[in-house]
Amino acid sequence: MTKQRIDFQPVGRTISVDKDTSILEASRSAGVGLSAICGGETGCGSCRVRLSREAAVSPANALECDTLTSDELENGYRLACQATVLGDLSVDIPPESLTAAQRTQVEGDEHSFELVPPVISYTLDLVKADREDLQSDWERLNEALIASGMSKPEPGQLCMIQQLPAILRNNGWRVQVGLRGDTIVTISAPEIPLLGLAVDIGTTKVAGYLMDMKTGKALAMQGEMNPQIAYGEDIMARITYLMKQTSGQNELQQAILTTLNRMVSELCQSASDKNDEGAAPQIYTPQQVVEIVVVGNTAMHHVFLGLPVSYLGVAPYIAAASASMDIPARELGLEVSPGAMVHLLPNIAGFIGGDHVSMLLATEVNSKSGNSIFLDIGTNTEVTLATKGRKISCSTASGPAFEGAHIRDGMRAADGAIERVRIIDNRVEYQTISEEKPVGICGSGILDAIAQFKEAGILNFRGGFETDHPLVRKGENGLEVVIASGDSTRHGHDIVLTRKDVSEIQLAKGAIRAGIELLLKEAGISADELDQVIIAGAFGSFIDINSAMTIGMFPSLPPDRFRQVGNAAGVGAKQALLSTVKRTEASEIAQSVEYLELAHHPDFTNEFAAAMRF
Amino acid sequence: MTKQRIDFQPVGRTISVDKDTSILEASRSAGVGLSAICGGETGCGSCRVRLSREAAVSPANALECDTLTSDELENGYRLACQATVLGDLSVDIPPESLTAAQRTQVEGDEHSFELVPPVISYTLDLVKADREDLQSDWERLNEALIASGMSKPEPGQLCMIQQLPAILRNNGWRVQVGLRGDTIVTISAPEIPLLGLAVDIGTTKVAGYLMDMKTGKALAMQGEMNPQIAYGEDIMARITYLMKQTSGQNELQQAILTTLNRMVSELCQSASDKNDEGAAPQIYTPQQVVEIVVVGNTAMHHVFLGLPVSYLGVAPYIAAASASMDIPARELGLEVSPGAMVHLLPNIAGFIGGDHVSMLLATEVNSKSGNSIFLDIGTNTEVTLATKGRKISCSTASGPAFEGAHIRDGMRAADGAIERVRIIDNRVEYQTISEEKPVGICGSGILDAIAQFKEAGILNFRGGFETDHPLVRKGENGLEVVIASGDSTRHGHDIVLTRKDVSEIQLAKGAIRAGIELLLKEAGISADELDQVIIAGAFGSFIDINSAMTIGMFPSLPPDRFRQVGNAAGVGAKQALLSTVKRTEASEIAQSVEYLELAHHPDFTNEFAAAMRF
Repeated sequence: MTKQRIDFQPVGRTISVDKDTSILEASRSAGVGLSAICGGETGCGSCRVRLSREAAVSPANALECDTLTSDELENGYRLACQATVLGDLSVDIPPESLTAAQRTQVEGDEHSFELVPPVISYTLDLVKADREDLQSDWERLNEALIASGMSKPEPGQLCMIQQLPAILRNNGWRVQVGLRGDTIVTISAPEIPLLGLAVDIGTTKVAGYLMDMKTGKALAMQGEMNPQIAYGEDIMARITYLMKQTSGQNELQQAILTTLNRMVSELCQSASDKNDEGAAPQIYTPQQVVEIVVVGNTAMHHVFLGLPVSYLGVAPYIAAASASMDIPARELGLEVSPGAMVHLLPNIAGFIGGDHVSMLLATEVNSKSGNSIFLDIGTNTEVTLATKGRKISCSTASGPAFEGAHIRDGMRAADGAIERVRIIDNRVEYQTISEEKPVGICGSGILDAIAQFKEAGILNFRGGFETDHPLVRKGENGLEVVIASGDSTRHGHDIVLTRKDVSEIQLAKGAIRAGIELLLKEAGISADELDQVIIAGAFGSFIDINSAMTIGMFPSLPPDRFRQVGNAAGVGAKQALLSTVKRTEASEIAQSVEYLELAHHPDFTNEFAAAMRF
Repeated sequence: MTKQRIDFQPVGRTISVDKDTSILEASRSAGVGLSAICGGETGCGSCRVRLSREAAVSPANALECDTLTSDELENGYRLACQATVLGDLSVDIPPESLTAAQRTQVEGDEHSFELVPPVISYTLDLVKADREDLQSDWERLNEALIASGMSKPEPGQLCMIQQLPAILRNNGWRVQVGLRGDTIVTISAPEIPLLGLAVDIGTTKVAGYLMDMKTGKALAMQGEMNPQIAYGEDIMARITYLMKQTSGQNELQQAILTTLNRMVSELCQSASDKNDEGAAPQIYTPQQVVEIVVVGNTAMHHVFLGLPVSYLGVAPYIAAASASMDIPARELGLEVSPGAMVHLLPNIAGFIGGDHVSMLLATEVNSKSGNSIFLDIGTNTEVTLATKGRKISCSTASGPAFEGAHIRDGMRAADGAIERVRIIDNRVEYQTISEEKPVGICGSGILDAIAQFKEAGILNFRGGFETDHPLVRKGENGLEVVIASGDSTRHGHDIVLTRKDVSEIQLAKGAIRAGIELLLKEAGISADELDQVIIAGAFGSFIDINSAMTIGMFPSLPPDRFRQVGNAAGVGAKQALLSTVKRTEASEIAQSVEYLELAHHPDFTNEFAAAMRF
């Protein structure tokens, strides 16, 4: 079969595929971060691409004609999930369809803590073997370790013994050994720094941190999109995708592992580059990475480990495993030191994962006095209430509206997204990311807009628009408010918020608020007794707290009781990487949390209905 | 490049290879056990094959013209290591060039012992997960184990957790768990028998035993040629081959692993077939094999584990590792239960391996009173003297003469080999294996012949022939004795023993006797104080003890002090498979043995010279 050449612009990647491959599949193979919120299932329209008029593709099908406006079709817009390749092709991906452009948050508030690294390195001088001393290399090393006061070590991997003879003879019988408890996890030439990698696998974003295991120093950090987005924007879409696969192959697992392998190599490169400016140049390589900590929600945890997600996807949502685990990196195909172990923080329940535990660890939940709420806002929002020695957690399906999904002109927090909105004298003012011409509106912008609508009297408590307000107009699909008019936007169309958009946000903020309220009820305290509300995650860090209180997503409290801590899950992962004491603490947190299941909670429906009001 | 089709007869295997491939390489790719004593290095002639006159091969080169007689060349004989393929070809392999036909000894004397299996299976009934009980599958299993009085288990392999959810749900939450200490090494449906595999990797032969881990019953056994023979008949030839390889790939390791994978699958098949006759049919599969024990000499041990052999091959012959080891089978690429571990018995020194430890274990060295010699005769012969609580071992380079190598008409113990010789009234009588027409003479036959020469007055004490003896004639290369005349042999040529052949045996038996004498000297006892001489291995089990004493390979003792125990290394491997107590004993044996290095021993030259006398 002859291959067709597909050229993706502006990313500049090219790939050859079989005829009849969909453009979405081609983009996945090419590693292009093309958005596909519904995973190619329902025509959500997020994978819009633009083709030239004479492009060799299948004609627009019924789904495309339904999803795209006649204007868009006229201008060459197509759904990448539907259009299939008939010949060589150039594909133009508009910014709002490109996932990779999204800002990825990797930094979070740090606390100091004591280093208690799981892997400790020792440099040993062995006695050279000769005719009078015929002991094998491995036993020679063991004896030297025992002589230094350690117990008899176990070989972490066979390859350590395989490499030992050459290392000894190439370094004058001087050798560096990395011990993880009683297990030798690395054997190398002396003076090679041992590295660690902390990873936070979010549904949307992946953050990686390269650390020096001895000094605890951060050497490099990197954030990027989770490549699994190509298989569905939210967790359920990905679980559904996996459940439909008949082959044993797990493409989603492969996708994240490939990304991590690339990431660790880029992190090492960037750490080596930085280092060049200093006094003694230091080269860092993935083979020096001897320990990895991974945090993620339960689904990301399962996909990363290749655990079946089938039972996570159906009631009663049972996880295959929850406790913390140590898995050889090699078993997973991670291209780091062959003896490296991957430590996974424990999950709390089917929908409360190690990333939330990591956030609770980083924000020092155990040392909080008074009443505190901990929030991790995403497509699922995890909420924990710490009060009087108890920790109660729930997970609530806030949906992807804050990520811009299911919002007519919604987009993620990428360049050109409207991120702040104010209504002044019945005029809508906005600010975009990178101050580029607006392309769409992202979560924090939507939140602001709705809060402003409420204050400007556009919105009633049910979320309906006041028809006689000057900013409200009748659009194609009912009432809407123009946020940016076509003459100022990049694509020349108006950016609006519709009544339906407001409903999406209502569901999202209602779910979060209901979660908070049910936890307070469970603990028998009222909202104004809360001393602290700690908000983690990219979205949570960018929102305007006052807007969130105005629309009722959070209870009304003095603003100084809120704290936006950035990527706390990433901070917790770094702590767990560098301290076994922190790992123990994480396991204690996971075990001591009481899980409150909302799905079947008798009060959920009422609380949810109440929480949807503006 | 077009491929040429090569058809090997009588084995009936066909393979396609590139033009200019040597027939030896082609036979290796096809898995045909073609003998190649020198590994294709020096034209030892052991890879003789026969081609038709019009065969599309390279013309005979100088080495072939040197090695082969004009008669052989005339009759289409060629060296497989030299002749390269020019077109499609049929290759006829004469029996003496075929390694696979060799008798492989797998049975040995057994002693009863208590089963203390390293892997123990438990069947558990778990409480089904539901809305009120959301615990993850893995923690549920852990709790059930703890409730049964076990300590918190470790997952042996990630795949165990991966498989657990489906196994639980397909078997009504009933599950069988195999525990190795605190590690779960297998999770399966209930009532699946757990199997073990004991393997003895000899330089020439590989023996495998499939055992039921619970009952200790032997389910099947199999012996075959070590496929590494294609890379050199003796250890040094193979080490030399490996040291010349520039790529990281280890063909020899791959060859033995491929053989073991095939062997375990054939063993399971044959165990299942046997079982069909019984009451309840039982299917055995490699996936049920949860534990493997491997014994072998130090070089086989290193090659099997992919450890570097470079330092084993040069003085002071330092092993990469000697102690007993547990290595995940999966890490080696063995296709058994994914959690299976491979236990390797410890080596004693560079040239005394786990197979000798295994022999000492099986022959109960620790419970022997008096003075005992333990012998493992091969291309290296290991000798241990147990006396007054001491165990002293040495290794001596007896060479491949007993395997028929470097002997003019020598061959291994295959069909048609002369294995017994008697001289009666100046007439040579012989017996062949399987009573077929003679093709050559194997080790036990050569030993007999030389003993008979001595008794008949053909041989003087230096190994020279008495020129005036009626059986002695002048051949092409000096004096010789005809064992079988051309009119009775399969190929029509005389089978003779030459003066040079006698020298080869002199070196071999001299090395063994010198080893024995030096051990006795070290312990300060004389040969007639020996209460027992225990002889293991295929060759040692087939020889005539009286002949061995006649030629001075063994000291002269009453015959009832000798015991030929068959494949004791295999028996020890089975014991170590089924009993952790036996493993501990093996390690104690290895540690308590004193190693006597002969190479630099001040008395070696004298003892060796004396021991070469007849």
